[in-house]
Amino acid sequence: MIVVSVSYPNDPATRFDEAYYLQTHIPMVKQRWSGMGLQSVQVLRGLGTPDGGPAPMRITALLAWDSTEALGRAVEAHGAEIFGDIPNFTDGRPVMQVSEPAG
Amino acid sequence: MIVVSVSYPNDPATRFDEAYYLQTHIPMVKQRWSGMGLQSVQVLRGLGTPDGGPAPMRITALLAWDSTEALGRAVEAHGAEIFGDIPNFTDGRPVMQVSEPAG
Repeated sequence: MIVVSVSYPNDPATRFDEAYYLQTHIPMVKQRWSGMGLQSVQVLRGLGTPDGGPAPMRITALLAWDSTEALGRAVEAHGAEIFGDIPNFTDGRPVMQVSEPAG
Repeated sequence: MIVVSVSYPNDPATRFDEAYYLQTHIPMVKQRWSGMGLQSVQVLRGLGTPDGGPAPMRITALLAWDSTEALGRAVEAHGAEIFGDIPNFTDGRPVMQVSEPAG
């Protein structure tokens, strides 16, 4: 199992339409990639830092996949459509990372 | 439910003893805070970016808590010991964030 994190920095200078993201973008991600190895999607909304500062990330999606091979096939099949949807809810750029469970 | 993420940037100039982190630090976290509202701990090891670059974060721990109040009580009770253990495995500083599930 691998986890892809897609985090949108909490930059007040950028637009982020959370309603579109939650009601249109994430359902599209699940619809296109469920059945291609996407196991689960968890969306986290940043509240702040433990000491009361602003959250570094506004929104983070954690996508669990069967394997890097499944991820590659899914991106090849639907990546253009899904990444092409990003400008519909933000003019910011996500920070993406591929990780594996440890420990 | 809230989620606290504790991420160690993937900075080659910093030391990070993953064996100590996984075998001593994380078990201490679980031992001290289970029973105080800590529901689960997920540790992710960064592999890279989707386009083959280095992972922004070396290690991220995701701690799910019953509530911000439970988190506050747990930090008050054992925070000094747990945060004081960080120099035993790294000279880097974690990026921390409190989030809530969305969608």
